[in-house]
Amino acid sequence: MNGDGTRAAAERERSWWGWGWADQALDEQACAKLARRVSPFLPLDGDLAPVPVLPELPAPRLAPPTAVAALCRADARTRAAHAYGRAYRDVVRLLRGVLDNPPDLVAYPRTEQDVVAVLDWAAGAGVPVVPFGGGTSVVGGVEYRGGGPWLSLDLTGLSGVAEVDEVSRAALIRGGTFGPDLEDALRPHGLTLRHFPQSFEFSTFGGWLATRAGGHYATGYTHIDDLVEALRVVTPAGIAQSLRVPASGAGPSPDRLWLGSEGTLGVITEGWARVQRRPEFRAGAALRFDAYADAVQAVRAVAQSGLRPANCRLLDPLEAMLGAAAADGASRLLLAFESADHPVDALLARAVELCRAHRGVPEEAAAGTAGQWRETFVGAPYLRDGLARLGVVVETFETACTWAAFEALHAAVVAAVATAGVTETGHPALVTCRFTHVYPDGPAPYFTVYAAGRRGAEVAIWDALKRAAGDVIAAHGGTITHHHAVGRDHLPWYAGQRPEPFALALRAAKTALDPAGVLNPGVLLP
Amino acid sequence: MNGDGTRAAAERERSWWGWGWADQALDEQACAKLARRVSPFLPLDGDLAPVPVLPELPAPRLAPPTAVAALCRADARTRAAHAYGRAYRDVVRLLRGVLDNPPDLVAYPRTEQDVVAVLDWAAGAGVPVVPFGGGTSVVGGVEYRGGGPWLSLDLTGLSGVAEVDEVSRAALIRGGTFGPDLEDALRPHGLTLRHFPQSFEFSTFGGWLATRAGGHYATGYTHIDDLVEALRVVTPAGIAQSLRVPASGAGPSPDRLWLGSEGTLGVITEGWARVQRRPEFRAGAALRFDAYADAVQAVRAVAQSGLRPANCRLLDPLEAMLGAAAADGASRLLLAFESADHPVDALLARAVELCRAHRGVPEEAAAGTAGQWRETFVGAPYLRDGLARLGVVVETFETACTWAAFEALHAAVVAAVATAGVTETGHPALVTCRFTHVYPDGPAPYFTVYAAGRRGAEVAIWDALKRAAGDVIAAHGGTITHHHAVGRDHLPWYAGQRPEPFALALRAAKTALDPAGVLNPGVLLP
Repeated sequence: MNGDGTRAAAERERSWWGWGWADQALDEQACAKLARRVSPFLPLDGDLAPVPVLPELPAPRLAPPTAVAALCRADARTRAAHAYGRAYRDVVRLLRGVLDNPPDLVAYPRTEQDVVAVLDWAAGAGVPVVPFGGGTSVVGGVEYRGGGPWLSLDLTGLSGVAEVDEVSRAALIRGGTFGPDLEDALRPHGLTLRHFPQSFEFSTFGGWLATRAGGHYATGYTHIDDLVEALRVVTPAGIAQSLRVPASGAGPSPDRLWLGSEGTLGVITEGWARVQRRPEFRAGAALRFDAYADAVQAVRAVAQSGLRPANCRLLDPLEAMLGAAAADGASRLLLAFESADHPVDALLARAVELCRAHRGVPEEAAAGTAGQWRETFVGAPYLRDGLARLGVVVETFETACTWAAFEALHAAVVAAVATAGVTETGHPALVTCRFTHVYPDGPAPYFTVYAAGRRGAEVAIWDALKRAAGDVIAAHGGTITHHHAVGRDHLPWYAGQRPEPFALALRAAKTALDPAGVLNPGVLLP
Repeated sequence: MNGDGTRAAAERERSWWGWGWADQALDEQACAKLARRVSPFLPLDGDLAPVPVLPELPAPRLAPPTAVAALCRADARTRAAHAYGRAYRDVVRLLRGVLDNPPDLVAYPRTEQDVVAVLDWAAGAGVPVVPFGGGTSVVGGVEYRGGGPWLSLDLTGLSGVAEVDEVSRAALIRGGTFGPDLEDALRPHGLTLRHFPQSFEFSTFGGWLATRAGGHYATGYTHIDDLVEALRVVTPAGIAQSLRVPASGAGPSPDRLWLGSEGTLGVITEGWARVQRRPEFRAGAALRFDAYADAVQAVRAVAQSGLRPANCRLLDPLEAMLGAAAADGASRLLLAFESADHPVDALLARAVELCRAHRGVPEEAAAGTAGQWRETFVGAPYLRDGLARLGVVVETFETACTWAAFEALHAAVVAAVATAGVTETGHPALVTCRFTHVYPDGPAPYFTVYAAGRRGAEVAIWDALKRAAGDVIAAHGGTITHHHAVGRDHLPWYAGQRPEPFALALRAAKTALDPAGVLNPGVLLP
């Protein structure tokens, strides 16, 4: 997340089996240190799974015409790197060399016309095409599970900021642009998209749009949905270009059909996004709450105040202990405000006042806590991979619910997942919760689970935990996903969440736009 | 817009031919006074069209089964009142008694099951059903133009606030609830929906949803789209109920399919909406700008500052003269901030500072101007009806465009409409502009046109003006409608604005949800 993103990317290698940069994976020493940190909480078997060796792959089963073939790669490393997303269950499978059905080919279009050519061929030949941005899906969104041959469509060749409208504060960004690259391109204009999902370094603008990504800002226009001015989408039925206007009341929003369509209704090649001046004024605080219920009420008060903090991250006691080294059984709230135009100290002061009314205590030493969370945040997936090698089952899931529903949902999720996580070791799973986003009508709780694993059974253990979590969330009125998308892993609960007539409409729209059914089959519409 | 909405409604009668309450139509004396005000600007023929007498209507051509018939009215007044919306061209036609094809029946469902019964019968019998909230459409949205028999589905019997969740700040509001009634129901809870379109008194919650209404707040969450938590919609293919959560990333948003669907994809029977505490802190100012271009730059600076004024209404010189009695050739900007939680004086001061940097001059005597605009705003349609009786062609249209596009768009619209408005009197039309809403990436300009009419030719004159306006807006990158919806009158430009693949998807969704094609035929999808 620094200015060297582009330059560094040219020199550094992405991991084919784990998160992010290959050279940032924890080494043996770091894993040993991690093991010492974890062992007080969870039994470890003392093993460390080795970094995997790239397995041999069967020969590709596809032979596209020359024009398309020229865009494709078929080497084992490229195919393996495009076989899965980067969920825990993906990393565990790759650690074991499990590559049951990697893509036969990976296509790298450089132009919109290349995308058209790939889709034309695929539709005619009936070849499933899975659009692939940065490949950071944690819900099986880029993993074809149909068994037959398929093509992964890597869009990172459609990269760069094509145009900046400084007057209207908008930028035309190509779909395959990684987060750091688009920020690098906007920085000389004094502008920022100000959209920082946890995957920022390794995910793309088009991926954010296709999955309705949530940035890390707690309130306000934090979802990519709200930052979009216009979209350009290649569908098998033609190219859709929406009008670039700040708002329109002309029928249902065209953009909202493709936002969240996860590659099933077309390939987003570029979009105009609203950008902002870079923040210059900042103020932050951290507060301690002895009672979690008080902290929740304080956050609700802040969320309903109209103050719109940039950060409003409530850590429950276990999250505070594991994530912020605060082992006193209290909850921690990280608050921050920022603006490109005016001082925000008064806003922070009012938010702190609201928290004090709910027995929140500002902490002297908290500046570090507040400042360092971002580093921990972006580094977490590397730790996750280290834990996976140590045999720990570790994963996150998230939801959003109303304030009225939260208390019961939180208690039920923690209880159900801890119980479902009692593996043969006898240890219950650890479940922590933080709020990533808060709205006037409810929070977006984000849960992290740590459970004692058993070598070879990790995926099954996680799937059981996930089933427990998903069922309890649905039963308590939460959405199956606030920002992780649906992919293939959330389908059972998504089917229950979406209104049946909407499923009919979506299916009809899909058939109209992708009559051959080749676009990311198995996602959203099984 | 006062607390007596409900009580008053029981005693007062709605006009069947003009805007709002029958007893608020301008009387002859008021029309004479209006004529004196207008005559310096536009030639008048000295006539005053009389208040029309309800014409005889042909007998209804529909005979639904008893259960549905019991919900229907067929008296001439009810049918006439449901024949059109309340655009200028509607009022002019009604002033002349032009009722070519009024609805044969008007159904008044009291329950969701009643709606299901009406749609079941209509789908089976192939009878067009036009959902009708308050009937304030200005784009032909509630006027069936197919020629055959049809039914108007008046939803105002589905009325009231069914539930209030004070913790999550949300309310379950039935679709047929008028603005004042829902505010009356929320007031005892200290809450407000804070959504005030100009039609507030006479339009319904369901109508706002179906047309993507814009409230009168200039910035922030002013569109009804952003205030919706969940929807319930009766479609011929089943009932759609979305999940009540503050946010979700589960596929394309189901609610966004029905928002703006204008009755073509289902009947919105109720919805959960985000409500707020009633504002307690307020601050406002009015500023004079000698140069309109300076004023536009100042507003852009405020819109891009993140200050989020509740009101940021820029009046161009002609609008300031006709609407705010400021005949000095300068533009006026009305600024206001409000909050339920904290003082907003510092926000106002910063906004004024931004305006001063663009040569804005705060006005001493401006408090009245700023305070009175709302009264003028809600009373405007009554004046419009008076002008129509005086023979003036008077109407409004609106758009939204980027800041970069605004200057050229504004100049071109004013020129084209003034020219197109040179009727046989030789007088060009007067065209005024104000900003109703402003966004970081562009304004929503709202134009009012006054042209010398000719008795009997008013509709044709207006249609020519509208064609000129629509063509110029489209040519300059503006949306054909920012908050007036598409209806039937905006179809030619809507077809050009929406991406063709989206039209395919929408058509397919329509066929899936309304296979008999009975829901508001002729709107959105001709």
